[in-house]
Amino acid sequence: LAREAPDKPRATRYHGGVTEADFLAALRGLPLHPGAHDLRDDTATLGRYVLTTDTLVEGVHFLAGDSPADVAWKLLATNLSDLAAKGARPSGVLLNYPLDDDGWDRAFLAGFGDALTHFATPLLGGDTVSLPQGAPRILTLTAIGEDAPAPPRSGARPGDGLHVTGTIGDAGAGLAVAQGRDGPAALVERYRRPLPRLAEGRALAPLVHAMMDVSDGLLIDAARMAEASGLAVTIDLAAIPLSAALRAYAGDGAEARLAAATAGDDYELLLAAASGAALPVPVTRIGGFAAGSGLTLTFAGAPVPLPARLGYQHRG
Amino acid sequence: LAREAPDKPRATRYHGGVTEADFLAALRGLPLHPGAHDLRDDTATLGRYVLTTDTLVEGVHFLAGDSPADVAWKLLATNLSDLAAKGARPSGVLLNYPLDDDGWDRAFLAGFGDALTHFATPLLGGDTVSLPQGAPRILTLTAIGEDAPAPPRSGARPGDGLHVTGTIGDAGAGLAVAQGRDGPAALVERYRRPLPRLAEGRALAPLVHAMMDVSDGLLIDAARMAEASGLAVTIDLAAIPLSAALRAYAGDGAEARLAAATAGDDYELLLAAASGAALPVPVTRIGGFAAGSGLTLTFAGAPVPLPARLGYQHRG
Repeated sequence: LAREAPDKPRATRYHGGVTEADFLAALRGLPLHPGAHDLRDDTATLGRYVLTTDTLVEGVHFLAGDSPADVAWKLLATNLSDLAAKGARPSGVLLNYPLDDDGWDRAFLAGFGDALTHFATPLLGGDTVSLPQGAPRILTLTAIGEDAPAPPRSGARPGDGLHVTGTIGDAGAGLAVAQGRDGPAALVERYRRPLPRLAEGRALAPLVHAMMDVSDGLLIDAARMAEASGLAVTIDLAAIPLSAALRAYAGDGAEARLAAATAGDDYELLLAAASGAALPVPVTRIGGFAAGSGLTLTFAGAPVPLPARLGYQHRG
Repeated sequence: LAREAPDKPRATRYHGGVTEADFLAALRGLPLHPGAHDLRDDTATLGRYVLTTDTLVEGVHFLAGDSPADVAWKLLATNLSDLAAKGARPSGVLLNYPLDDDGWDRAFLAGFGDALTHFATPLLGGDTVSLPQGAPRILTLTAIGEDAPAPPRSGARPGDGLHVTGTIGDAGAGLAVAQGRDGPAALVERYRRPLPRLAEGRALAPLVHAMMDVSDGLLIDAARMAEASGLAVTIDLAAIPLSAALRAYAGDGAEARLAAATAGDDYELLLAAASGAALPVPVTRIGGFAAGSGLTLTFAGAPVPLPARLGYQHRG
């Protein structure tokens, strides 16, 4: 298994991937808790709690030059986004932290404190370690939530609509702007400071058939929901909600919409709900489920070929 | 904060240490969950669950040449030892794993599966990541237990006896043997395959005033229990239980006993209980608590100067 070169920050989880798939298959041969859901969901269930954990690696999920406060925010926000998709209220988090240099550590803690406060999430505990000289920072956060209706990603039904909260593609464009392209600061903010949809998740969870967060890309995540549900899904590119900032930056055509739908890091909620269901928070219907399998794209009614890359996948 | 050079495998936790102490003080300024116990215990409490997490770093807590199966065993065993000290039954664990090379990964998984089976502990979930080329392996395990009487480390009372399960010093000597000194394989096994005292912990927890596991060294851990309890503790070196294998290897004098009492990695239980308390599993009384503060050592009644190093501390 080759180690990857540093690339765009992103979440990796137990889902998909060539080498990761092998590892997952082997993990499924170990003694699993029933709440592990066969390692096929983004959270585990234990009593009234749901649990999720994510590790961020310097040079893989974030860059050495990134602001420590932004890294802290993203570490918390990406975990809380998994709780949001279950409709959970955050109970607390555990932090595994590599002590490094005083300046980075203090800036990280200040940002981490701001993020905990912002999301009303307390620290439960954790662990600190020292790293060998020159080792990249590796940070792990484990988030625990409760009172979760916990809709699975596998619960979509034929005839369900596919809906998404907020707007898609801002973070992906924000990364390009952060790396030097001309563009609005609002997009960069969406990339640096994702806002997990905790309130929306709690309101939606009791009413939907399936829900997950959009972390790796709208298309790949929708395809995963369809696959887990044993259904086909169709997405109308023209229906994908784009922010005014993104439309001004990238335009409104099929190409811009494909880029938005495959960029990832949105941390919006993707959900399947019965057609006509009255949903209590604003969502945009972008497609629907039917018997069958696979992902079909259209643009205002006309079929669109699938892009080579649906999002982040196959990368351990 | 200087990064440490690779050294002996050991546990690091939120306790003590110059740089770690600064970091902990800063962490205590963040929003804490009541179950965080002000970050002064080895586990957090959430509802009926107790939680603990430990990160092992290649080159710090284990060596690149160590057997992957041993690393897996130690990763699980050291976490379960924290649950044992709370009298908890393991509910499940989360694994944060860096994918690397196929051989190491498969050997790790095989050993991890054996350890999960041995300790009747199921896998709940986790995360896999890829590391940049050349990065040391960093593994995190989070263990959750339930039905825990959860005696604190701070509950010792004046007049309590200080007791320990099993024998002390085997793992420390086993490391020396593993590194090339002549000695019995039984000691190496104690080092490579620690056995957390889960059953003993569950039996003892309802009956003791304070309990913790011995991970960093008997003396430092006893001193921590005394400090947390606001008491003085006296330990009789002559009373510390040594295995026949260790006595054959290192002798039975004060020097050998001091080495055993400061070596760490024992993963025995250290507990404070009322004098005369009927304890349901074999323990050895090695000292007692009184009003005051600090650690006093004796050897068969005569005072013994404290060694410069009580165990592993101050190292992040």
